[in-house]
Amino acid sequence: MKMNTTPVNNGVNVEALLGARQALTDAPEAAQFKWRATCSWVHGTHSRSSVEKFYGLGAEQSHKTAFQFDADHPAIFASEDNGATPVEYVLVGLASCLTAGIAAVAQNRKIQLRSVTATLEAGMDLAGILGIDSEVRNGFDGIKVIYNIDADATREEINALVAQSQRRSAVFDIVTNPTNVHVEVR
Amino acid sequence: MKMNTTPVNNGVNVEALLGARQALTDAPEAAQFKWRATCSWVHGTHSRSSVEKFYGLGAEQSHKTAFQFDADHPAIFASEDNGATPVEYVLVGLASCLTAGIAAVAQNRKIQLRSVTATLEAGMDLAGILGIDSEVRNGFDGIKVIYNIDADATREEINALVAQSQRRSAVFDIVTNPTNVHVEVR
Repeated sequence: MKMNTTPVNNGVNVEALLGARQALTDAPEAAQFKWRATCSWVHGTHSRSSVEKFYGLGAEQSHKTAFQFDADHPAIFASEDNGATPVEYVLVGLASCLTAGIAAVAQNRKIQLRSVTATLEAGMDLAGILGIDSEVRNGFDGIKVIYNIDADATREEINALVAQSQRRSAVFDIVTNPTNVHVEVR
Repeated sequence: MKMNTTPVNNGVNVEALLGARQALTDAPEAAQFKWRATCSWVHGTHSRSSVEKFYGLGAEQSHKTAFQFDADHPAIFASEDNGATPVEYVLVGLASCLTAGIAAVAQNRKIQLRSVTATLEAGMDLAGILGIDSEVRNGFDGIKVIYNIDADATREEINALVAQSQRRSAVFDIVTNPTNVHVEVR
């Protein structure tokens, strides 16, 4: 009988995550994070946002570099299409959050992933943001996420991976549940 | 008496937007949009998302180029920090949506903007996503957005701009109200 002895490696350091869970259980104040972004208006509907610093583990933290993101409206809205639309950034956040979760859960369950791709589609009735119909919401009327996953696992195990990723996803929670947003001018 | 005759120009084509509102009022099916993103897992918590095609005005549409976005977890989570975190993408979406709205509303109200910057901060207790405490949500416990706006307008007019932008913002709605997300594996 030949055993497969290649260790599962999805590139996620699960030992470190489990260690962090224990450490933050013992020191709950270190689990209080603050995520930040800044945004500067450029011209028309074009803006440039930057993400670099955040707070966590009781101290100021920084990404290894500042990440910059141009956002704009597309040409069919009489804009210059200098970047993805704001709503598409939300889809990127949701897709990347669920996908990172799938990799982490797979590692923890010793499932080798070969490929994971997601296709997202979100409906939106522009009668909302254009103020045509006050009964129509401004945001998405729903989001559909379809995963294609190639892994050393049964179909049932793969479904369970995706389900667990949703249960632990920050962005899935942000999109599916209300979050208070306070906006002020200084 | 000297009149200021320089036309207000924030780079937003309000006439086109008002035309679109009328056109979409007359043809509501053209207002049905579908926004899309695809996401491919790279390694560990690193993924790459792409935004290019969308549907609207009754036809398939495309940005002038495909926009690509790397997402990852930072080094303090034992990841490689190859991109912004998924939750930071949500902040970019919110910031850029509100900022584009401010520019559009200002143009419509004939207010010349000189500069608009936003600073966003969102709290998050990692006890949620790490599964330490089931009472703690996975997402943000709230988001604070602070605007600094230099414009040819009174403080009251500037506050009203920001308030109107919130009322018409797709991402503000997505974050503050629940959206149904359907996830499936194919």
